[in-house]
Amino acid sequence: MQSTPITAAVLVIGDEILSGRTQDTNTHYIANYLHQIGIDLCEARIVADDEAEIVAAVNALRQRYHYLFTTGGIGPTHDDITADAVARAFGLEIKEDARALAMLRERFSEMELNPARRRMARIPVGAELVPNALSKAPGFWLGNVIVMAGVPAIMQSMLDTVGQKLEVGVQMLVETIQAGAIAEGRYAMQLEEIARHYDGVSIGSYPSFTSQGMRNQIVLRSRDSERLEQAALQVRQMISEIISLD
Amino acid sequence: MQSTPITAAVLVIGDEILSGRTQDTNTHYIANYLHQIGIDLCEARIVADDEAEIVAAVNALRQRYHYLFTTGGIGPTHDDITADAVARAFGLEIKEDARALAMLRERFSEMELNPARRRMARIPVGAELVPNALSKAPGFWLGNVIVMAGVPAIMQSMLDTVGQKLEVGVQMLVETIQAGAIAEGRYAMQLEEIARHYDGVSIGSYPSFTSQGMRNQIVLRSRDSERLEQAALQVRQMISEIISLD
Repeated sequence: MQSTPITAAVLVIGDEILSGRTQDTNTHYIANYLHQIGIDLCEARIVADDEAEIVAAVNALRQRYHYLFTTGGIGPTHDDITADAVARAFGLEIKEDARALAMLRERFSEMELNPARRRMARIPVGAELVPNALSKAPGFWLGNVIVMAGVPAIMQSMLDTVGQKLEVGVQMLVETIQAGAIAEGRYAMQLEEIARHYDGVSIGSYPSFTSQGMRNQIVLRSRDSERLEQAALQVRQMISEIISLD
Repeated sequence: MQSTPITAAVLVIGDEILSGRTQDTNTHYIANYLHQIGIDLCEARIVADDEAEIVAAVNALRQRYHYLFTTGGIGPTHDDITADAVARAFGLEIKEDARALAMLRERFSEMELNPARRRMARIPVGAELVPNALSKAPGFWLGNVIVMAGVPAIMQSMLDTVGQKLEVGVQMLVETIQAGAIAEGRYAMQLEEIARHYDGVSIGSYPSFTSQGMRNQIVLRSRDSERLEQAALQVRQMISEIISLD
Protein backbone atom coordinates (compact mmCIF):
# COMPACT_ATOMS: atom_id res chain seq x y z
CA MET A 1 0.00 0.00 0.00
CA GLN A 2 1.31 3.41 -1.03
CA SER A 3 1.15 6.44 1.22
CA THR A 4 1.19 8.82 -1.76
CA PRO A 5 -2.12 8.90 -3.63
CA ILE A 6 -2.52 6.51 -6.55
CA THR A 7 -4.26 8.33 -9.38
CA ALA A 8 -6.34 7.19 -12.32
CA ALA A 9 -8.28 8.40 -15.34
CA VAL A 10 -11.16 6.86 -17.29
CA LEU A 11 -11.48 7.06 -21.06
CA VAL A 12 -14.91 6.15 -22.45
CA ILE A 13 -14.77 5.36 -26.17
CA GLY A 14 -17.92 5.45 -28.25
CA ASP A 15 -20.02 7.53 -30.62
CA GLU A 16 -23.14 6.18 -28.91
CA ILE A 17 -22.35 8.10 -25.72
CA LEU A 18 -21.65 11.41 -27.50
CA SER A 19 -24.74 11.16 -29.73
CA GLY A 20 -26.95 10.82 -26.67
CA ARG A 21 -28.05 7.29 -27.56
CA THR A 22 -26.51 5.72 -24.47
CA GLN A 23 -26.05 7.07 -20.95
CA ASP A 24 -22.51 6.20 -19.82
CA THR A 25 -22.73 4.40 -16.47
CA ASN A 26 -19.24 2.88 -16.58
CA THR A 27 -17.45 6.01 -15.35
CA HIS A 28 -19.67 6.17 -12.26
CA TYR A 29 -19.15 2.46 -11.59
CA ILE A 30 -15.36 2.72 -11.96
CA ALA A 31 -15.30 5.91 -9.85
CA ASN A 32 -17.04 4.10 -6.99
CA TYR A 33 -14.90 1.01 -7.38
CA LEU A 34 -11.63 2.96 -7.31
CA HIS A 35 -12.82 5.05 -4.39
CA GLN A 36 -13.47 1.86 -2.38
CA ILE A 37 -9.95 0.53 -2.96
CA GLY A 38 -8.13 3.83 -2.37
CA ILE A 39 -7.36 5.00 -5.91
CA ASP A 40 -8.18 8.62 -6.81
CA LEU A 41 -10.05 9.06 -10.08
CA CYS A 42 -8.75 12.46 -11.24
CA GLU A 43 -10.21 12.86 -14.73
CA ALA A 44 -12.55 11.22 -17.22
CA ARG A 45 -12.96 11.76 -20.93
CA ILE A 46 -15.41 10.57 -23.56
CA VAL A 47 -14.19 10.42 -27.16
CA ALA A 48 -15.66 9.17 -30.43
CA ASP A 49 -14.76 5.99 -32.33
CA ASP A 50 -11.93 7.83 -34.08
CA GLU A 51 -8.39 6.46 -34.01
CA ALA A 52 -6.57 9.80 -33.82
CA GLU A 53 -8.82 10.97 -30.98
CA ILE A 54 -8.35 7.76 -29.03
CA VAL A 55 -4.55 7.80 -29.53
CA ALA A 56 -4.29 11.41 -28.35
CA ALA A 57 -6.44 10.82 -25.27
CA VAL A 58 -4.68 7.56 -24.33
CA ASN A 59 -1.28 9.24 -24.53
CA ALA A 60 -2.36 12.35 -22.63
CA LEU A 61 -3.93 10.35 -19.81
CA ARG A 62 -1.50 7.43 -19.45
CA GLN A 63 1.41 9.85 -19.08
CA ARG A 64 -0.32 11.81 -16.39
CA TYR A 65 -1.88 9.23 -14.06
CA HIS A 66 -0.87 5.92 -12.48
CA TYR A 67 -3.64 4.07 -14.28
CA LEU A 68 -5.85 4.63 -17.29
CA PHE A 69 -9.01 2.55 -17.64
CA THR A 70 -10.69 2.52 -21.05
CA THR A 71 -14.16 1.17 -21.82
CA GLY A 72 -15.68 0.38 -25.20
CA GLY A 73 -14.62 -0.49 -28.71
CA ILE A 74 -13.30 -4.05 -28.35
CA GLY A 75 -16.11 -5.98 -30.10
CA PRO A 76 -16.13 -7.61 -33.55
CA THR A 77 -17.56 -4.78 -35.67
CA HIS A 78 -15.75 -2.23 -37.80
CA ASP A 79 -16.39 0.56 -35.26
CA ASP A 80 -14.42 -1.37 -32.62
CA ILE A 81 -10.97 0.16 -33.00
CA THR A 82 -9.72 0.52 -29.44
CA ALA A 83 -7.08 -2.24 -29.55
CA ASP A 84 -5.55 -0.82 -32.73
CA ALA A 85 -5.61 2.71 -31.34
CA VAL A 86 -3.96 1.69 -28.06
CA ALA A 87 -1.24 -0.23 -29.97
CA ARG A 88 -0.62 2.88 -32.03
CA ALA A 89 -0.53 5.08 -28.93
CA PHE A 90 2.24 2.88 -27.55
CA GLY A 91 3.97 2.53 -30.93
CA LEU A 92 3.55 -1.26 -30.70
CA GLU A 93 2.58 -3.88 -33.22
CA ILE A 94 -0.82 -5.55 -32.93
CA LYS A 95 -1.24 -9.24 -33.84
CA GLU A 96 -3.58 -12.13 -33.38
CA ASP A 97 -2.84 -13.45 -29.90
CA ALA A 98 -2.85 -17.23 -29.40
CA ARG A 99 -4.11 -16.94 -25.83
CA ALA A 100 -6.96 -14.64 -26.89
CA LEU A 101 -7.84 -16.99 -29.75
CA ALA A 102 -8.02 -19.91 -27.30
CA MET A 103 -10.46 -17.89 -25.19
CA LEU A 104 -12.66 -17.21 -28.21
CA ARG A 105 -12.62 -20.93 -29.03
CA GLU A 106 -14.28 -21.62 -25.67
CA ARG A 107 -17.32 -19.90 -27.12
CA PHE A 108 -17.15 -20.23 -30.89
CA SER A 109 -16.86 -23.30 -33.12
CA GLU A 110 -14.31 -23.15 -35.96
CA MET A 111 -17.16 -22.35 -38.35
CA GLU A 112 -18.42 -19.53 -36.15
CA LEU A 113 -14.94 -18.10 -35.71
CA ASN A 114 -15.08 -15.90 -38.82
CA PRO A 115 -12.63 -13.05 -39.53
CA ALA A 116 -14.78 -10.51 -37.67
CA ARG A 117 -14.75 -12.58 -34.50
CA ARG A 118 -11.05 -13.37 -34.93
CA ARG A 119 -10.42 -9.61 -34.89
CA MET A 120 -11.29 -9.76 -31.18
CA ALA A 121 -8.10 -11.82 -30.70
CA ARG A 122 -5.94 -8.98 -32.03
CA ILE A 123 -3.96 -7.67 -29.06
CA PRO A 124 -0.98 -5.28 -28.89
CA VAL A 125 2.22 -7.27 -28.55
CA GLY A 126 3.32 -7.59 -24.93
CA ALA A 127 -0.07 -6.95 -23.33
CA GLU A 128 -1.51 -9.11 -20.56
CA LEU A 129 -5.03 -10.36 -21.22
CA VAL A 130 -8.00 -9.52 -19.03
CA PRO A 131 -10.41 -12.47 -19.16
CA ASN A 132 -14.07 -11.95 -20.05
CA ALA A 133 -16.23 -14.37 -18.08
CA LEU A 134 -19.40 -13.39 -19.94
CA SER A 135 -18.61 -13.40 -23.65
CA LYS A 136 -14.98 -14.57 -23.77
CA ALA A 137 -13.41 -11.82 -25.94
CA PRO A 138 -10.74 -10.48 -23.59
CA GLY A 139 -9.68 -7.00 -22.62
CA PHE A 140 -6.00 -6.30 -22.00
CA TRP A 141 -3.54 -4.56 -19.73
CA LEU A 142 -0.62 -2.78 -21.37
CA GLY A 143 1.80 -0.67 -19.34
CA ASN A 144 -0.52 1.30 -17.07
CA VAL A 145 -3.50 1.13 -19.46
CA ILE A 146 -6.34 -1.30 -18.80
CA VAL A 147 -8.62 -1.82 -21.80
CA MET A 148 -12.10 -3.09 -20.99
CA ALA A 149 -15.39 -3.76 -22.77
CA GLY A 150 -18.15 -1.15 -22.99
CA VAL A 151 -21.06 -3.43 -22.04
CA PRO A 152 -21.42 -2.66 -18.31
CA ALA A 153 -21.77 -6.25 -17.09
CA ILE A 154 -18.61 -7.31 -18.95
CA MET A 155 -16.68 -4.21 -17.89
CA GLN A 156 -17.61 -4.85 -14.25
CA SER A 157 -16.41 -8.45 -14.37
CA MET A 158 -13.13 -7.32 -15.99
CA LEU A 159 -12.65 -4.66 -13.33
CA ASP A 160 -13.13 -7.26 -10.61
CA THR A 161 -10.37 -9.33 -12.19
CA VAL A 162 -7.84 -6.51 -12.53
CA GLY A 163 -8.83 -4.84 -9.24
CA GLN A 164 -6.93 -7.40 -7.22
CA LYS A 165 -3.70 -6.60 -9.05
CA LEU A 166 -3.82 -2.80 -8.82
CA GLU A 167 -1.46 -0.90 -6.62
CA VAL A 168 -3.71 0.83 -4.12
CA GLY A 169 -3.35 3.79 -1.79
CA VAL A 170 -4.70 4.58 1.64
CA GLN A 171 -8.46 4.50 1.42
CA MET A 172 -10.27 7.81 1.26
CA LEU A 173 -12.66 8.22 4.19
CA VAL A 174 -15.94 10.03 3.77
CA GLU A 175 -18.38 11.74 6.11
CA THR A 176 -21.70 12.87 4.71
CA ILE A 177 -23.67 15.40 6.72
CA GLN A 178 -27.28 16.26 5.92
CA ALA A 179 -27.91 19.99 5.80
CA GLY A 180 -31.52 19.34 4.76
CA ALA A 181 -33.42 22.42 3.70
CA ILE A 182 -30.80 24.86 5.07
CA ALA A 183 -29.72 26.93 2.09
CA GLU A 184 -26.07 26.65 1.05
CA GLY A 185 -25.74 30.42 1.22
CA ARG A 186 -26.45 30.35 4.94
CA TYR A 187 -23.48 28.16 5.77
CA ALA A 188 -21.08 28.85 2.89
CA MET A 189 -18.88 31.34 4.73
CA GLN A 190 -18.50 29.23 7.87
CA LEU A 191 -17.91 26.14 5.76
CA GLU A 192 -15.13 27.92 3.92
CA GLU A 193 -13.51 28.76 7.27
CA ILE A 194 -13.65 25.10 8.30
CA ALA A 195 -12.31 23.97 4.91
CA ARG A 196 -9.44 26.46 5.20
CA HIS A 197 -8.60 25.32 8.71
CA TYR A 198 -8.62 21.60 7.93
CA ASP A 199 -5.96 21.16 5.31
CA GLY A 200 -6.08 17.67 3.82
CA VAL A 201 -9.85 17.44 4.30
CA SER A 202 -11.73 18.23 1.11
CA ILE A 203 -15.21 19.60 1.75
CA GLY A 204 -17.98 19.88 -0.80
CA SER A 205 -21.56 21.10 -0.61
CA TYR A 206 -24.07 19.45 -2.92
CA PRO A 207 -27.58 20.71 -3.55
CA SER A 208 -30.26 18.56 -5.13
CA PHE A 209 -33.91 19.03 -5.92
CA THR A 210 -36.26 16.62 -4.17
CA SER A 211 -40.05 16.43 -3.98
CA GLN A 212 -39.70 18.50 -0.77
CA GLY A 213 -37.68 21.18 -2.57
CA MET A 214 -33.93 21.88 -2.42
CA ARG A 215 -31.93 19.67 -0.06
CA ASN A 216 -28.21 20.01 0.68
CA GLN A 217 -25.53 17.55 1.70
CA ILE A 218 -22.06 18.41 2.93
CA VAL A 219 -19.43 15.80 2.11
CA LEU A 220 -16.02 15.68 3.81
CA ARG A 221 -13.23 13.50 2.41
CA SER A 222 -9.81 12.75 3.83
CA ARG A 223 -7.30 9.96 4.31
CA ASP A 224 -6.66 11.19 7.88
CA SER A 225 -9.44 9.83 10.09
CA GLU A 226 -8.67 12.07 13.05
CA ARG A 227 -8.73 15.32 11.08
CA LEU A 228 -11.82 14.13 9.23
CA GLU A 229 -13.68 13.54 12.50
CA GLN A 230 -12.60 16.94 13.86
CA ALA A 231 -13.75 18.74 10.72
CA ALA A 232 -17.03 16.77 10.64
CA LEU A 233 -17.69 17.74 14.26
CA GLN A 234 -17.24 21.40 13.34
CA VAL A 235 -19.65 21.06 10.45
CA ARG A 236 -22.26 19.29 12.61
CA GLN A 237 -22.00 22.03 15.25
CA MET A 238 -22.37 24.67 12.56
CA ILE A 239 -25.54 23.00 11.26
CA SER A 240 -26.97 22.64 14.81
CA GLU A 241 -26.38 26.32 15.49
CA ILE A 242 -28.13 27.35 12.30
CA ILE A 243 -31.10 25.10 13.15
CA SER A 244 -31.28 26.57 16.66
CA LEU A 245 -31.65 30.04 15.15
CA ASP A 246 -34.72 29.05 13.12
CA MET B 1 -28.10 27.09 -40.59
CA GLN B 2 -24.59 25.94 -41.39
CA SER B 3 -23.82 23.18 -43.87
CA THR B 4 -20.50 22.38 -42.17
CA PRO B 5 -20.95 20.54 -38.88
CA ILE B 6 -21.15 22.65 -35.73
CA THR B 7 -19.13 20.96 -33.01
CA ALA B 8 -19.25 21.07 -29.23
CA ALA B 9 -17.64 19.71 -26.08
CA VAL B 10 -18.96 19.29 -22.55
CA LEU B 11 -16.88 19.92 -19.43
CA VAL B 12 -18.32 18.55 -16.20
CA ILE B 13 -16.73 20.16 -13.13
CA GLY B 14 -16.96 18.48 -9.75
CA ASP B 15 -15.20 16.23 -7.25
CA GLU B 16 -18.53 14.55 -6.51
CA ILE B 17 -18.62 12.95 -9.96
CA LEU B 18 -15.03 11.66 -9.82
CA SER B 19 -15.40 10.30 -6.28
CA GLY B 20 -18.38 8.20 -7.37
CA ARG B 21 -20.80 10.08 -5.13
CA THR B 22 -22.89 11.39 -8.02
CA GLN B 23 -23.72 9.87 -11.40
CA ASP B 24 -23.31 12.59 -14.04
CA THR B 25 -26.50 12.80 -16.08
CA ASN B 26 -25.85 16.26 -17.53
CA THR B 27 -23.56 15.03 -20.32
CA HIS B 28 -26.20 12.60 -21.55
CA TYR B 29 -28.88 15.30 -21.41
CA ILE B 30 -26.74 17.83 -23.30
CA ALA B 31 -25.70 15.14 -25.84
CA ASN B 32 -29.34 14.44 -26.64
CA TYR B 33 -30.24 18.11 -26.73
CA LEU B 34 -27.41 19.01 -29.11
CA HIS B 35 -28.17 16.00 -31.28
CA GLN B 36 -31.78 17.20 -31.67
CA ILE B 37 -30.72 20.67 -32.84
CA GLY B 38 -27.96 19.50 -35.18
CA ILE B 39 -24.81 20.19 -33.14
CA ASP B 40 -22.20 17.39 -32.90
CA LEU B 41 -20.95 16.67 -29.42
CA CYS B 42 -17.37 15.55 -30.09
CA GLU B 43 -15.84 15.19 -26.64
CA ALA B 44 -16.66 15.35 -22.95
CA ARG B 45 -14.42 15.68 -19.93
CA ILE B 46 -14.91 15.48 -16.20
CA VAL B 47 -12.43 17.36 -14.00
CA ALA B 48 -12.15 18.06 -10.28
CA ASP B 49 -12.84 21.34 -8.45
CA ASP B 50 -9.28 22.48 -9.12
CA GLU B 51 -8.60 25.81 -10.79
CA ALA B 52 -5.57 24.75 -12.84
CA GLU B 53 -7.41 21.66 -14.12
CA ILE B 54 -10.48 23.68 -15.09
CA VAL B 55 -8.40 26.37 -16.82
CA ALA B 56 -6.47 23.78 -18.83
CA ALA B 57 -9.60 21.91 -19.91
CA VAL B 58 -11.53 25.10 -20.78
CA ASN B 59 -8.67 26.34 -22.95
CA ALA B 60 -8.11 22.99 -24.66
CA LEU B 61 -11.79 22.54 -25.48
CA ARG B 62 -12.84 26.09 -26.36
CA GLN B 63 -10.04 26.35 -28.92
CA ARG B 64 -11.01 23.10 -30.56
CA TYR B 65 -14.81 23.21 -30.87
CA HIS B 66 -17.48 25.73 -31.81
CA TYR B 67 -19.03 25.56 -28.36
CA LEU B 68 -18.01 24.44 -24.92
CA PHE B 69 -20.71 23.78 -22.32
CA THR B 70 -19.62 23.54 -18.70
CA THR B 71 -21.72 22.28 -15.80
CA GLY B 72 -21.10 22.65 -12.09
CA GLY B 73 -19.25 24.88 -9.66
CA ILE B 74 -21.25 28.12 -9.75
CA GLY B 75 -22.91 27.97 -6.32
CA PRO B 76 -22.12 29.97 -3.16
CA THR B 77 -19.69 27.60 -1.43
CA HIS B 78 -15.87 27.65 -1.42
CA ASP B 79 -15.67 24.66 -3.79
CA ASP B 80 -17.56 26.64 -6.46
CA ILE B 81 -14.68 28.06 -8.49
CA THR B 82 -15.85 27.75 -12.09
CA ALA B 83 -16.44 31.47 -12.75
CA ASP B 84 -12.98 32.38 -11.48
CA ALA B 85 -11.36 29.58 -13.47
CA VAL B 86 -13.13 30.56 -16.70
CA ALA B 87 -12.11 34.20 -16.22
CA ARG B 88 -8.53 33.06 -15.76
CA ALA B 89 -8.72 30.81 -18.82
CA PHE B 90 -9.72 33.87 -20.88
CA GLY B 91 -7.25 36.18 -19.09
CA LEU B 92 -10.16 38.38 -18.05
CA GLU B 93 -11.02 40.17 -14.85
CA ILE B 94 -13.90 38.90 -12.73
CA LYS B 95 -16.13 41.35 -10.84
CA GLU B 96 -19.46 41.60 -9.11
CA ASP B 97 -21.95 42.09 -11.93
CA ALA B 98 -24.81 44.51 -11.32
CA ARG B 99 -27.21 42.52 -13.51
CA ALA B 100 -26.38 39.29 -11.67
CA LEU B 101 -26.79 41.01 -8.33
CA ALA B 102 -30.23 42.24 -9.39
CA MET B 103 -31.17 38.64 -10.23
CA LEU B 104 -30.06 37.45 -6.79
CA ARG B 105 -32.13 40.23 -5.19
CA GLU B 106 -35.24 38.70 -6.74
CA ARG B 107 -34.68 35.81 -4.33
CA PHE B 108 -32.75 37.15 -1.38
CA SER B 109 -33.46 40.02 1.02
CA GLU B 110 -30.60 42.42 1.81
CA MET B 111 -30.04 40.51 5.05
CA GLU B 112 -29.92 37.17 3.29
CA LEU B 113 -27.54 38.47 0.64
CA ASN B 114 -24.37 37.67 2.58
CA PRO B 115 -20.87 37.62 1.04
CA ALA B 116 -21.17 33.92 0.10
CA ARG B 117 -24.35 34.54 -1.87
CA ARG B 118 -22.91 37.71 -3.39
CA ARG B 119 -20.07 35.55 -4.75
CA MET B 120 -22.65 34.12 -7.15
CA ALA B 121 -22.84 37.58 -8.77
CA ARG B 122 -19.14 37.48 -9.67
CA ILE B 123 -18.98 37.18 -13.46
CA PRO B 124 -16.06 37.53 -15.88
CA VAL B 125 -16.11 41.02 -17.43
CA GLY B 126 -17.83 41.03 -20.82
CA ALA B 127 -19.89 37.84 -20.35
CA GLU B 128 -23.57 37.60 -21.16
CA LEU B 129 -25.71 36.24 -18.34
CA VAL B 130 -27.75 33.05 -18.63
CA PRO B 131 -30.82 33.44 -16.41
CA ASN B 132 -31.66 30.81 -13.80
CA ALA B 133 -35.44 30.45 -13.52
CA LEU B 134 -35.21 28.10 -10.55
CA SER B 135 -32.79 29.59 -8.06
CA LYS B 136 -31.81 32.92 -9.68
CA ALA B 137 -27.98 32.68 -9.58
CA PRO B 138 -27.12 33.01 -13.27
CA GLY B 139 -24.79 31.12 -15.54
CA PHE B 140 -22.95 33.01 -18.26
CA TRP B 141 -21.88 32.92 -21.87
CA LEU B 142 -18.36 34.14 -22.67
CA GLY B 143 -16.92 33.81 -26.18
CA ASN B 144 -17.92 30.30 -27.18
CA VAL B 145 -18.10 29.00 -23.60
CA ILE B 146 -21.45 28.53 -21.88
CA VAL B 147 -21.20 28.11 -18.12
CA MET B 148 -24.15 26.38 -16.48
CA ALA B 149 -25.16 25.02 -13.08
CA GLY B 150 -24.53 21.43 -12.06
CA VAL B 151 -27.97 20.72 -10.59
CA PRO B 152 -29.70 18.97 -13.51
CA ALA B 153 -33.00 20.86 -13.34
CA ILE B 154 -31.22 24.23 -13.36
CA MET B 155 -28.79 23.16 -16.10
CA GLN B 156 -31.71 22.03 -18.26
CA SER B 157 -33.52 25.32 -17.90
CA MET B 158 -30.33 27.23 -18.73
CA LEU B 159 -29.74 25.06 -21.78
CA ASP B 160 -33.28 25.78 -22.99
CA THR B 161 -32.52 29.50 -22.76
CA VAL B 162 -29.22 29.40 -24.63
CA GLY B 163 -30.36 26.73 -27.09
CA GLN B 164 -32.38 29.25 -29.09
CA LYS B 165 -29.29 31.39 -29.66
CA LEU B 166 -26.88 28.67 -30.77
CA GLU B 167 -25.70 28.42 -34.33
CA VAL B 168 -26.96 25.04 -35.48
CA GLY B 169 -26.08 22.66 -38.29
CA VAL B 170 -28.08 20.31 -40.45
CA GLN B 171 -29.77 17.83 -38.18
CA MET B 172 -28.24 14.40 -37.91
CA LEU B 173 -30.71 11.73 -39.01
CA VAL B 174 -30.78 8.35 -37.30
CA GLU B 175 -32.06 4.90 -38.22
CA THR B 176 -32.05 2.22 -35.55
CA ILE B 177 -32.37 -1.38 -36.69
CA GLN B 178 -33.01 -4.22 -34.26
CA ALA B 179 -30.69 -7.15 -34.80
CA GLY B 180 -32.24 -8.91 -31.81
CA ALA B 181 -30.40 -12.02 -30.69
CA ILE B 182 -28.28 -12.24 -33.87
CA ALA B 183 -24.68 -12.14 -32.66
CA GLU B 184 -22.59 -9.18 -33.81
CA GLY B 185 -19.94 -11.56 -35.09
CA ARG B 186 -22.42 -12.96 -37.63
CA TYR B 187 -22.98 -9.65 -39.38
CA ALA B 188 -19.79 -7.73 -38.59
CA MET B 189 -18.09 -8.40 -41.94
CA GLN B 190 -21.10 -7.51 -44.07
CA LEU B 191 -21.77 -4.47 -41.93
CA GLU B 192 -18.22 -3.28 -42.50
CA GLU B 193 -18.76 -3.63 -46.26
CA ILE B 194 -21.90 -1.51 -46.06
CA ALA B 195 -20.17 1.06 -43.84
CA ARG B 196 -17.27 1.28 -46.29
CA HIS B 197 -19.62 1.70 -49.24
CA TYR B 198 -21.74 4.42 -47.65
CA ASP B 199 -19.34 7.22 -46.98
CA GLY B 200 -20.96 9.90 -44.83
CA VAL B 201 -23.14 7.36 -43.04
CA SER B 202 -21.70 6.37 -39.68
CA ILE B 203 -22.75 2.89 -38.61
CA GLY B 204 -22.43 1.45 -35.13
CA SER B 205 -23.40 -1.87 -33.60
CA TYR B 206 -24.39 -1.88 -29.93
CA PRO B 207 -24.82 -4.98 -27.80
CA SER B 208 -26.65 -4.95 -24.51
CA PHE B 209 -27.62 -7.55 -21.95
CA THR B 210 -31.33 -7.98 -21.41
CA SER B 211 -33.36 -10.48 -19.40
CA GLN B 212 -33.55 -12.49 -22.65
CA GLY B 213 -29.75 -12.46 -23.05
CA MET B 214 -27.61 -10.42 -25.44
CA ARG B 215 -29.49 -8.16 -27.87
CA ASN B 216 -27.95 -6.03 -30.60
CA GLN B 217 -28.95 -2.79 -32.26
CA ILE B 218 -27.45 -1.31 -35.40
CA VAL B 219 -27.55 2.47 -35.54
CA LEU B 220 -26.99 4.45 -38.75
CA ARG B 221 -26.39 8.21 -38.62
CA SER B 222 -26.09 10.68 -41.46
CA ARG B 223 -27.07 14.17 -42.53
CA ASP B 224 -27.93 12.85 -46.02
CA SER B 225 -31.40 11.30 -45.84
CA GLU B 226 -31.13 9.52 -49.20
CA ARG B 227 -27.86 7.78 -48.45
CA LEU B 228 -29.07 6.96 -44.96
CA GLU B 229 -32.17 5.24 -46.36
CA GLN B 230 -30.10 3.31 -48.90
CA ALA B 231 -27.67 2.11 -46.26
CA ALA B 232 -30.50 1.24 -43.86
CA LEU B 233 -32.16 -0.81 -46.60
CA GLN B 234 -28.92 -2.77 -47.06
CA VAL B 235 -28.68 -3.44 -43.34
CA ARG B 236 -32.31 -4.58 -43.13
CA GLN B 237 -31.78 -6.93 -46.07
CA MET B 238 -28.64 -8.29 -44.43
CA ILE B 239 -30.54 -9.01 -41.18
CA SER B 240 -33.43 -10.66 -43.09
CA GLU B 241 -31.01 -12.92 -44.92
CA ILE B 242 -29.34 -14.00 -41.69
CA ILE B 243 -32.75 -14.73 -40.13
CA SER B 244 -33.78 -16.78 -43.16
CA LEU B 245 -30.70 -18.99 -42.65
CA ASP B 246 -31.68 -19.88 -39.07
